[in-house]
Amino acid sequence: MEEDSSERAKEATGTLAAYYREETQVNEEVEERDPESNSSLHQPLLKRNKTLSSNPLALVGTKVSHIESLDYEINENDLFKQDWRSRSKVQVLQYIFSKWTLACLVGLLTGLIATLINLAVENIAGYKLLAVVGFIKKQRYLTGLIYLTGVNFGLTLIAAVLCVCFAPTAAGPGIPEIKAYLNGVDTPNMFGATTLIVKIIGSIGAVSAGLDLGKEGPLVHIGSCIASLLGQGGPDNYRINWRWLRYFNNDRDRRDLITCGASSGVCAAFRAPVGGVLFSLEEVATWWRSALLWRTFFSTAVVVVVLRAFIEICNSGKCGLFGKGGLIMFDVSNVIVRYHVMDVVPVTIIGIIGGLLGSLYNHVLHKVLRLYNLINQKGKIHKLLLSVTVSIFTSVCLYCLPFLAKCQLCDPDITETCRTNGRSGYYKQFNCPNGYYNDLATILLTTNDDAVRKLFSSNTPNEFQPLSLLIFFALYCILGLITFGIAVPSGLFLPIILIGAAYGRLLGISMGSYSTIDPGLYAVLGAASLMAGSMRMTVSLCVIFLELTNNLLLLPITMIVLLIAKTVGDCFNPSIYEIILELKGLPFLDAHPEPWMRNLTVGELADAKPPVVTLNGVEKVSRIVDVLRNTTHNGFPVVDDGVVPPTGLALGATETHGLILRAHLLQALKKKFFLPEKRRTEEWEVREKFTWVELAEREGRIEEVAVTSDEMEMYIDLHPLTNSTPYTVMESISVAKAMVLFRGVGLRHLLIVPKYEAAGASPVIGILTRQDLRAYNILSAFPHLDRSKGGGKN
Amino acid sequence: MEEDSSERAKEATGTLAAYYREETQVNEEVEERDPESNSSLHQPLLKRNKTLSSNPLALVGTKVSHIESLDYEINENDLFKQDWRSRSKVQVLQYIFSKWTLACLVGLLTGLIATLINLAVENIAGYKLLAVVGFIKKQRYLTGLIYLTGVNFGLTLIAAVLCVCFAPTAAGPGIPEIKAYLNGVDTPNMFGATTLIVKIIGSIGAVSAGLDLGKEGPLVHIGSCIASLLGQGGPDNYRINWRWLRYFNNDRDRRDLITCGASSGVCAAFRAPVGGVLFSLEEVATWWRSALLWRTFFSTAVVVVVLRAFIEICNSGKCGLFGKGGLIMFDVSNVIVRYHVMDVVPVTIIGIIGGLLGSLYNHVLHKVLRLYNLINQKGKIHKLLLSVTVSIFTSVCLYCLPFLAKCQLCDPDITETCRTNGRSGYYKQFNCPNGYYNDLATILLTTNDDAVRKLFSSNTPNEFQPLSLLIFFALYCILGLITFGIAVPSGLFLPIILIGAAYGRLLGISMGSYSTIDPGLYAVLGAASLMAGSMRMTVSLCVIFLELTNNLLLLPITMIVLLIAKTVGDCFNPSIYEIILELKGLPFLDAHPEPWMRNLTVGELADAKPPVVTLNGVEKVSRIVDVLRNTTHNGFPVVDDGVVPPTGLALGATETHGLILRAHLLQALKKKFFLPEKRRTEEWEVREKFTWVELAEREGRIEEVAVTSDEMEMYIDLHPLTNSTPYTVMESISVAKAMVLFRGVGLRHLLIVPKYEAAGASPVIGILTRQDLRAYNILSAFPHLDRSKGGGKN
Repeated sequence: MEEDSSERAKEATGTLAAYYREETQVNEEVEERDPESNSSLHQPLLKRNKTLSSNPLALVGTKVSHIESLDYEINENDLFKQDWRSRSKVQVLQYIFSKWTLACLVGLLTGLIATLINLAVENIAGYKLLAVVGFIKKQRYLTGLIYLTGVNFGLTLIAAVLCVCFAPTAAGPGIPEIKAYLNGVDTPNMFGATTLIVKIIGSIGAVSAGLDLGKEGPLVHIGSCIASLLGQGGPDNYRINWRWLRYFNNDRDRRDLITCGASSGVCAAFRAPVGGVLFSLEEVATWWRSALLWRTFFSTAVVVVVLRAFIEICNSGKCGLFGKGGLIMFDVSNVIVRYHVMDVVPVTIIGIIGGLLGSLYNHVLHKVLRLYNLINQKGKIHKLLLSVTVSIFTSVCLYCLPFLAKCQLCDPDITETCRTNGRSGYYKQFNCPNGYYNDLATILLTTNDDAVRKLFSSNTPNEFQPLSLLIFFALYCILGLITFGIAVPSGLFLPIILIGAAYGRLLGISMGSYSTIDPGLYAVLGAASLMAGSMRMTVSLCVIFLELTNNLLLLPITMIVLLIAKTVGDCFNPSIYEIILELKGLPFLDAHPEPWMRNLTVGELADAKPPVVTLNGVEKVSRIVDVLRNTTHNGFPVVDDGVVPPTGLALGATETHGLILRAHLLQALKKKFFLPEKRRTEEWEVREKFTWVELAEREGRIEEVAVTSDEMEMYIDLHPLTNSTPYTVMESISVAKAMVLFRGVGLRHLLIVPKYEAAGASPVIGILTRQDLRAYNILSAFPHLDRSKGGGKN
Repeated sequence: MEEDSSERAKEATGTLAAYYREETQVNEEVEERDPESNSSLHQPLLKRNKTLSSNPLALVGTKVSHIESLDYEINENDLFKQDWRSRSKVQVLQYIFSKWTLACLVGLLTGLIATLINLAVENIAGYKLLAVVGFIKKQRYLTGLIYLTGVNFGLTLIAAVLCVCFAPTAAGPGIPEIKAYLNGVDTPNMFGATTLIVKIIGSIGAVSAGLDLGKEGPLVHIGSCIASLLGQGGPDNYRINWRWLRYFNNDRDRRDLITCGASSGVCAAFRAPVGGVLFSLEEVATWWRSALLWRTFFSTAVVVVVLRAFIEICNSGKCGLFGKGGLIMFDVSNVIVRYHVMDVVPVTIIGIIGGLLGSLYNHVLHKVLRLYNLINQKGKIHKLLLSVTVSIFTSVCLYCLPFLAKCQLCDPDITETCRTNGRSGYYKQFNCPNGYYNDLATILLTTNDDAVRKLFSSNTPNEFQPLSLLIFFALYCILGLITFGIAVPSGLFLPIILIGAAYGRLLGISMGSYSTIDPGLYAVLGAASLMAGSMRMTVSLCVIFLELTNNLLLLPITMIVLLIAKTVGDCFNPSIYEIILELKGLPFLDAHPEPWMRNLTVGELADAKPPVVTLNGVEKVSRIVDVLRNTTHNGFPVVDDGVVPPTGLALGATETHGLILRAHLLQALKKKFFLPEKRRTEEWEVREKFTWVELAEREGRIEEVAVTSDEMEMYIDLHPLTNSTPYTVMESISVAKAMVLFRGVGLRHLLIVPKYEAAGASPVIGILTRQDLRAYNILSAFPHLDRSKGGGKN
């Protein structure tokens, strides 16, 4: 199973890359045509540039068709309606009960796995670092270097090999893919059991290896994987087929579960239940309703209870090197926060710097990821080489740079300062004489979590020298950029927090006596500002920082910093997640239509596509097989010709019956739901062949279906399998409004109906899909549109 | 101006009441028909009960047509499109800048007014209570009673007279109406200047009068009023017509502003910026997008800054009797929270009690409000009498009940305990000898805010006796039920918090040594549970309580309590806001379609309505006047007959051009946009007559328009004024799906197009409005639908 899935995943990544190249190509084509399209500036606005009618829309759509869209719309065909009407009260209660049980299980498992990862990381990294400190104490510097590099190399290799060979989708944070899933784009192989296991082990390996990445993003992905697996009753090949689990075998309920999973993941990462819910709401989810708000909240509550239980257990010392530190991440609640009106100036400066640095980070990371894409495409060995190179570079830097720092005298007031042995989290003596400590080693030779905690620590204004902080800042800027794209599970949160905390603390120290705010709080604000500058979240980040720092008095200044940083960042480029989404070529549908979309009607858009393929209500088998073989569409309008309309209309009317999915056509062919003559079926005939549950399956290809030549001459009655209530738009509606409908209701196909009512007219003149509504695709067919607003993004 | 608006408001309230009676009547009718409709159980599901085709749908719709729906859909007519295309970059920036400026101003003004109300209440109530304490000290008990009752009587009278005579919409909390507004229902006269002023003064009066109501709900309404007034440039008759304010003269932008206002109000009430945003998101708003999340967040940040500034000023003693207490409501951050796994039991009990009591409260309040409705309908005098009766009853109870309590010995450890004079917030000596205090007087003879603070106070386990708490609980249960419906601005939050805190503390005391949680924390949890049990919010309540108590360690148990209380409450009845919405007859559209809505198509729904009135693309004036006079519809489909269709279609096709609003037809008549012959107009002709800004005005009635008989024979070209991109559904779509579309996209009218394509067919067979999609209205036309699921609500 593993091989199979990795094969499929490879294929997916390959095609993604192909799509990406394709995109670049199309882009170039458009630019070549510039001289032509410039003339269109003087044309009336609503006229389309006819030279481009060789529909690149369809072209692009075809290339990425293996990424199927999800069916968030309820498919109201006859079978569904029968099932709906026959559902008893008991079944409804069963459904509700299992929904809540699953939400609880998602929270429980996410909490447990998060604890497991924390425990493993703290212990592996702890013992490793203790050994290194031991070597240095004995002045065996070279042995220490080799030991550190070797162990890190090994840990990285484990993580990278797992990712490269078994589950390529487990690399990276996973959040963009989850975002895309909740938008309706099903990235193949994203939520499988293999991915989950690789993600857990890989995350432990990568974080323990001291790489500049966090476990936060992976935890979100892990939560979502758990949710998806629970919803479908286990891994693909070993599913449990309990009756009450079948209710969840549809995209809508899976979407809700995965939202719960993502929230639980954030909650487990930051111990921030409300922040987790808001993160899902603000950043991840596309559709939201208050019932879901409540259920996600329940999941995160369960996570918190699990984490609290483990904190109590670990406080009694049963978790090895793992103290309470790993779970209560950054508790600065005991700090007395003092600030005055004058502090608005430094706070504004932090916000502006955060915004500038954040957008710069996004920009450079984009370039680096494009470069890495090229390297990673060359094969598995290249991927592995890249990963271990980064690991070796990281280890050498972490080990050698502290020798540049000056030794600091231990402050006898701070009890923790110089107990360098025994626990991993304390100040490091490193190469210094007794009674002294090396401040750079303290934040470099430790886990990332501990480094953040040290930087956030307050009442320690002089513990870290500006030079050390500067080195730290520069190093993590480089590491943050080169580490993210390698083939291991990696989160973006922690690298950004580390950079932000470093420059925040630097700024705090440089403020000196001007400001009354503690340098530790400056570090917190710096981290918040860079997060906002790069990820562009506001309310959820604010709440996460609130819960992280456990200090409500910070709220007003955090809010100001976040707002400024986001505003500044938005002036330059989109958020980092959007950049990654675009880079991965996922057809994510934005919330807002572009302004120029009001100047184009869906009718004009449909003209640019090949004519729509419609099926008859009772269709010949040969035609269906033909259509399925020769098109890649996933939905076909079903139209009845020559029906007898209600009184008052002329004979020979055509009636739109609805939309049928490719998957259901395949089911009909597989089950041999054939009729020897052209007639409509009775209800019992359908019931005999199909159950509603079977129709939910989405497996199969037309190549796998065998139809004899006799059968080819038979008929299929498509009526009972057709979604008889599809959403429609008139051809005169603007693309902007169609997009609002498409995204607002969560569609996969949107039928275009004519505005003319006349005999002989086709009742459906086109189908809109996600690809057709993407700004980029439309602009490649209608390049003059964007120009008309004085040149925007193009 | 005041008189005028009060007249209109009276009319509105009157008609609302009439509608309510109407509703009851219809209900009875349906029940009478029960024996008939019982037989329909055995009919096929999708057959309609033909006996009811005298469309009660239209009937109910007609009765409430004065409550107009709002146009949240963008009306894409030619004028809008021209304006849209001609908007320069500068104008777009101007628009964005003014959006943010307005959001800032909303926050600023809400913060200032909240501070003003706090200051006024604390000082008026403070001096009043000091005088009463003085009389009691001199043992002049009767004088004290008369003084207290008299002052309270006067304050209540001021509030009630203002509300009754000038702005009846200012009575009550206003939150249900805001919720309805954001859902698309424009309650008349809700956001005017008079309402704002009356609400401010009335709220100060009512709260200072010691009535059992809060300033929280009114503050939300005040914030929304400010937002609405700012958006339209001032009160109705004195509007500022700045060019850049004109962009906000549409329902969409006003909706966004009012959302900001509501969030600011909650933030100002509880000093909870994140809670405010979430409250709007979870409870108030119907549509939401992340850009709005960010802007509301900005507004609440401004509010917090304003409040903090005033706290600093008041801390230096410049605010009279007003200490820091009034702004930092309930700060329990200095409490050490300790709880263990065993505490789950009492926490669960609190949650269950909260859910039960909350739903009971909702149920009884519903009955009381129905009764009050009957009294209030009898006239202004009855309204006033009701208000002052409640005031006198409250005053007498507050004054006399403390005599029932035993005197308590002052605890020398607590410094504040027995300083009864000087400030209003301390413990009350009342009738007790020196060195003793009266615990019941301490929580009764004070402001409601102070009472809550006292009940929430921790490390004071024995300060309040169970008997006193029981009396307090019983009294506030009664007061909470009888006070809410009187004609003064009143919030629901505080009465519920008071009841909840009382029983929470009682429970805490009765737990005794079993639990390690402080009775003060029990009070907090009790308040939270009752809020959740009555208002059914989760995440926003959780965050509000978090920010209110300033203690993050409470989070997990608060979450559990809220979840349990909401679950228990939901078993019995809907939330209090939904009950009030229904009681007021506001056509609020629920988020979720009822299950039986899947069994009905919009075509069947349209059959039950009178046939749709369509207009021709170029229509005769006389017909338009006729249609406007004889129908109450606010939108008409515009259809062109006999157009020459694109190639391939038969001649004689009809074309749906779009939908025109009544308001725009009136504008065309008023402006005499007439043509002597039947032809289409040129673009310049339209531009000469209309600007896009003028079309945004919604004033005027057909009776005010004078058309000569010559003009009656002329024509109007409706094309340029028609929204050419209306949303449509096919007649075969289910009501459930139509409702998802209607609410998801935020529509006012939804056209129904036929599924047949034939010559001579009408291209639009019906229009759906908000009223048609309400479950109650549909059920009165199709009563068998609900029965089919084994009897639900009916």
